[in-house]
Amino acid sequence: MSMTIPDTGNTPSKDTGVAETAKPNRGGLEGVVAATTAISKVDGTAGRLIYRGYDIHDLARTTSFEEVAHLLWFGHLPNQQELSDLHTKFVAQRTIPDRVMQVIRALPAETEPMDALRTAVSAWGALAVSGKPTVDLAIAATARFPLFLAAFNRLRHGQEPLEARPELGHAANYLYLLSGELPKDEHVRGLNSYLVLLADHGMNASTFTARIVASTESDIASSLVAAVGALKGPLHGGAPSKVQDMLKEIGTVENAEGWIREAITHGGRLMGFGHRVYKTEDPRAEELHEMARVADPQGFVLSRHVEERALALLAELKPGRRLYTNVEFYSAALMASVGLTGDLFTPTFAVSRCAGWTAHILEQVSNNRLIRPEAEYTGPIDVHFVSLAER
Amino acid sequence: MSMTIPDTGNTPSKDTGVAETAKPNRGGLEGVVAATTAISKVDGTAGRLIYRGYDIHDLARTTSFEEVAHLLWFGHLPNQQELSDLHTKFVAQRTIPDRVMQVIRALPAETEPMDALRTAVSAWGALAVSGKPTVDLAIAATARFPLFLAAFNRLRHGQEPLEARPELGHAANYLYLLSGELPKDEHVRGLNSYLVLLADHGMNASTFTARIVASTESDIASSLVAAVGALKGPLHGGAPSKVQDMLKEIGTVENAEGWIREAITHGGRLMGFGHRVYKTEDPRAEELHEMARVADPQGFVLSRHVEERALALLAELKPGRRLYTNVEFYSAALMASVGLTGDLFTPTFAVSRCAGWTAHILEQVSNNRLIRPEAEYTGPIDVHFVSLAER
Repeated sequence: MSMTIPDTGNTPSKDTGVAETAKPNRGGLEGVVAATTAISKVDGTAGRLIYRGYDIHDLARTTSFEEVAHLLWFGHLPNQQELSDLHTKFVAQRTIPDRVMQVIRALPAETEPMDALRTAVSAWGALAVSGKPTVDLAIAATARFPLFLAAFNRLRHGQEPLEARPELGHAANYLYLLSGELPKDEHVRGLNSYLVLLADHGMNASTFTARIVASTESDIASSLVAAVGALKGPLHGGAPSKVQDMLKEIGTVENAEGWIREAITHGGRLMGFGHRVYKTEDPRAEELHEMARVADPQGFVLSRHVEERALALLAELKPGRRLYTNVEFYSAALMASVGLTGDLFTPTFAVSRCAGWTAHILEQVSNNRLIRPEAEYTGPIDVHFVSLAER
Repeated sequence: MSMTIPDTGNTPSKDTGVAETAKPNRGGLEGVVAATTAISKVDGTAGRLIYRGYDIHDLARTTSFEEVAHLLWFGHLPNQQELSDLHTKFVAQRTIPDRVMQVIRALPAETEPMDALRTAVSAWGALAVSGKPTVDLAIAATARFPLFLAAFNRLRHGQEPLEARPELGHAANYLYLLSGELPKDEHVRGLNSYLVLLADHGMNASTFTARIVASTESDIASSLVAAVGALKGPLHGGAPSKVQDMLKEIGTVENAEGWIREAITHGGRLMGFGHRVYKTEDPRAEELHEMARVADPQGFVLSRHVEERALALLAELKPGRRLYTNVEFYSAALMASVGLTGDLFTPTFAVSRCAGWTAHILEQVSNNRLIRPEAEYTGPIDVHFVSLAER
């Protein structure tokens, strides 16, 4: 059996969230405290995710992405005036400079959307970003992630990019720019909740990458380009569209038990279970579960049945592994239900996480120290040099 | 006084190269062993740099960049046939796809060359890179770094990019693509030695970044784009052109003593001294010193005098800090002597380090584990949620 482990590694780690530093960690830095942060806390044992003191369950269905971005950047939820000011700033940044659009147009239609996003952010940084990271640059970048993706997505389908609509919020504007139609309220709500749930998640690989780049005193675009590249990796950003592929392959409730048993025992691809940090249900999965149920009641019947059987069979066949539903399992169903195609799932994760990345970059530079670890050298020493002529 | 600290942080670290993991490190991961590597060893106490068993002093003036790249990638120095095969592979990769050239042309002349390089590598990755990192992709990327930079450099000066010349080695071809003239042998030798000396350096910030991105199972271009972004930061890639600015400001041997004393005691910018790992002379600086002397005997008189006075005054005024000449001090003189302008110094560092980055990416994926540390949360917990209407 192999499993997708978004935001994580591929074998279980210690159950404790406490730093384990008694001996050097030569693998994945598990248990090594790489930084302090006041932005978010992932409690893998209790199954809690906290943004600046707020439990994710309090935020998931009650706040907009913009409110959460404000919380992550400024440390508190905005009042109505602050939210209105932030919306005004977002709207002012909803433009793609002509030269960045030329770059996006230069990419062929078969380009992976994550590569298109990475290249567009890099080109935008080359044109528009200089100096130290600031919250205004964080807003400028976060406002543009959906624009870059939607422009590329339309171009690859032979359509012209659209102008953003100032009256729409972040989630709604993204859906509008993709489709050219005013999105349904339920789709906006579903996508907004996804963007809220994925906006930050402790010291994950892309956030750590963004902080290391920021720690060199490089610019915010360099940090974000690096983070996009890290999120592209399936061990981190996952392969959420593969959950959909798996559900299609299973096809019916009746097939589930046999298919899952076969996958677990004979090395098939059981997608959407297991997480390096969570040793209980991922609190984001609980929320996404509910939203997927509302968004697509019919598809939910199969998803829910597969989840139940998978959890039962994992407990039976892999006792002690503590494998639970991860964020990816219902993300896919939710994103599909709002009209996103599979190859936009991970880029849409980036649209959300951009808020967290930029918050961490700002935190890193506010009290900076270059992140520069050591390595243990395991190669030879004192090899005798022989000139090319004598080799 | 502030000092440039290329490849490093900005305060002294422990003298030992041994992992210090008794307590969580919340700053820059100093002393934390983040990985094992057989590629290079930096011994900051003894002032040694080793590539795959070979002392840097044995390689600096006797091997070509291609030999060293072979050593880093394959673990041994090539014989004549292997070197010839590698040259053939390099030559075959010396092309810029049309669409990547469109991207480079879209960047305005005032773009920072590091931003242009980052964007070109990202666009090239979007077009040409998929699947797992391989040594062929390492060659493909390394061969193109000079092409991307030279194309951008010519375009920003209103000149058309040139075709690479298959008979030239890596260093000579780069100089030719920049200037359009066959470079002098002494310039090729000088630049080649620089490329050899900077090709790898343990678990520095950009290499660590590249490995984290690779550890997510992302692609080699995503790793390299991230590394370029990290090297752009002055705490890592440094600001080597500022050494030149400082020497210009000092102007004469007679002014040196007073200028340096003022800088050390009153917070001026003394550039080119201090390194987080080396607590003695950087072995690369020793080599560059010799090359700068040969390349520009006249300029060397001032450089050498400034170095001597700076070391004496640092020992007098900052006793115990163990601040020595770093790689940046003579890099600037050498790069200027071969005809590079100041804003190409750090990008040329990237041309060299691409060999090390790709070697580390290949090593990471050969025995991968996602690099995902922990963070210590220092923010509030259990903040009571209040709806927007009531805020």
